Amino acid sequence: MAQTTPDAVTLVEVGPRDGFQFEKTVVPTQRKLAVIARLIESGLKQIQVASFVHPAKVPQMADADELVAALPPVDHVTYSALVLNRRGLDRALKSGIGSVEISLSASDTHSRKNAGMGHADALEAGLEMIDRALSAGMVVRTSIQCAFGCVDEGSIPVGRILGIVERFVDHGAHVVSLADTTGMGTPPLIREVLDAILPQTGGLPVALHLHDTRGLGLVNLMTALNHGISIFDTALAGMGGCPFVSGAAGNIATEDTIHLLDTLGIRTGVDHRLVGAVSYDLEAFFNKTFPGRMHRLTAPPC
Amino acid sequence: MAQTTPDAVTLVEVGPRDGFQFEKTVVPTQRKLAVIARLIESGLKQIQVASFVHPAKVPQMADADELVAALPPVDHVTYSALVLNRRGLDRALKSGIGSVEISLSASDTHSRKNAGMGHADALEAGLEMIDRALSAGMVVRTSIQCAFGCVDEGSIPVGRILGIVERFVDHGAHVVSLADTTGMGTPPLIREVLDAILPQTGGLPVALHLHDTRGLGLVNLMTALNHGISIFDTALAGMGGCPFVSGAAGNIATEDTIHLLDTLGIRTGVDHRLVGAVSYDLEAFFNKTFPGRMHRLTAPPC
Repeated sequence: MAQTTPDAVTLVEVGPRDGFQFEKTVVPTQRKLAVIARLIESGLKQIQVASFVHPAKVPQMADADELVAALPPVDHVTYSALVLNRRGLDRALKSGIGSVEISLSASDTHSRKNAGMGHADALEAGLEMIDRALSAGMVVRTSIQCAFGCVDEGSIPVGRILGIVERFVDHGAHVVSLADTTGMGTPPLIREVLDAILPQTGGLPVALHLHDTRGLGLVNLMTALNHGISIFDTALAGMGGCPFVSGAAGNIATEDTIHLLDTLGIRTGVDHRLVGAVSYDLEAFFNKTFPGRMHRLTAPPC
Repeated sequence: MAQTTPDAVTLVEVGPRDGFQFEKTVVPTQRKLAVIARLIESGLKQIQVASFVHPAKVPQMADADELVAALPPVDHVTYSALVLNRRGLDRALKSGIGSVEISLSASDTHSRKNAGMGHADALEAGLEMIDRALSAGMVVRTSIQCAFGCVDEGSIPVGRILGIVERFVDHGAHVVSLADTTGMGTPPLIREVLDAILPQTGGLPVALHLHDTRGLGLVNLMTALNHGISIFDTALAGMGGCPFVSGAAGNIATEDTIHLLDTLGIRTGVDHRLVGAVSYDLEAFFNKTFPGRMHRLTAPPC
């Protein structure tokens, strides 16, 4: 389905969640808050700050409740948190965060590994969670992991993705996000899935969460832009990955994405140099090099 | 100018030249020969094996004469070498290599740094070298460095690129290559330059040499494909860079490019897994991680 390339794009910064979760070193809460503050200064308006998952399993996110409580309200800035199960939603509701991403995997195998239950059970649980979160007045983004393939199951039938999206739409989700968790997305596959899904969402915003595992992150973004997609998840410095997918590289890098969109004349409202300065400092903190490019070309802040 | 996306693409592997030249560790000649043999086994038909530059300045390429002498003739495989000045061409002619790339920079500043003379002098010398190489029966590829921008001079006027291309065409070059030495190419700029140049080449094949410095390598390749370009330089594992451009990442990775083209149904005749296996071994040899992606996802060879 031909669409108009958007004039402006919303970037959802997932580094403090998807990025920090992937590193062995736990980032102290105060440092997380400082990073988030600088990301906001750079112009980012949507930031995924935490995941309400089991603190023993994911110690990097163990401070989610404390972190959310300490976030300063900022005009036009939305903080969100990821939830994968009912218990996570309970904590999110208690934390006072106004926006959640309710996420499940289209792959049965990945769902069992990541959420401890098969896809069908995860979908029923997810729909119930959507209802509860909406009743509580939350903004609810829904997301489908492995939407473009699973390393264990291979390609995922488009019909399955469409079926999930339709349930999400029926239940009143505000946004649906398709996640290329494994970086198996390709231009033809992105086109095929979007062609199938966009006519069925009734105007519901569709976001893409792209990983650069196979080096196609920004190529896939270009394909999605040409389909009119205007919401993309990115992580500063290209941090992130997936613990269940060996060799997986991170999310598409926030600063690289902004740079590309800048060259295309597509507005983001974000200064990639300021994001890059945060990435630069985080490389020092983690003592490693992240896969993004632009932060290495911009000078460190004074 | 709208063009047809090609059904097949020729990849010119520049890793043994652009990649090895950038590393501090000098690769022994026998190992270079082994790498080149494996690249040929993977299906690559054009390989840039060396650069005839000053051995004291670029010790990594000091064995160029010896290497060329030891290359086994293989059906349908072309070995080429880079030459930047008259003395380099003398050595290339003596070496017996049948194909040279005569290269100069569109940027005056970069030309002075890289070739020791300004752009105008380099162009006159280059044209004389083309004539000599053609007289000697060589296949001559010409290339323009910094065709999409220079870190010192900024953007390069398209008219200047066009002027150089026209001189190359007049002198009978077999191919003209536009090199994004600094990775400053963007989709709009690639389109602008190709729109200006393609109508003026009289059907001469135009190749692109893309660097991934700013993460746009494969996005730029997609743009060029849509303009009908069907020859691209790549380096295994995304090796390479430019010693005069701080922070520069390497060439677009051979295996990542093949993977992308595979997904688009564009033939290369090359197996990215076999290239990736060579990259994997080279990471062990150099004891470093290169920026390409696909070689990390494919298993090491038995």
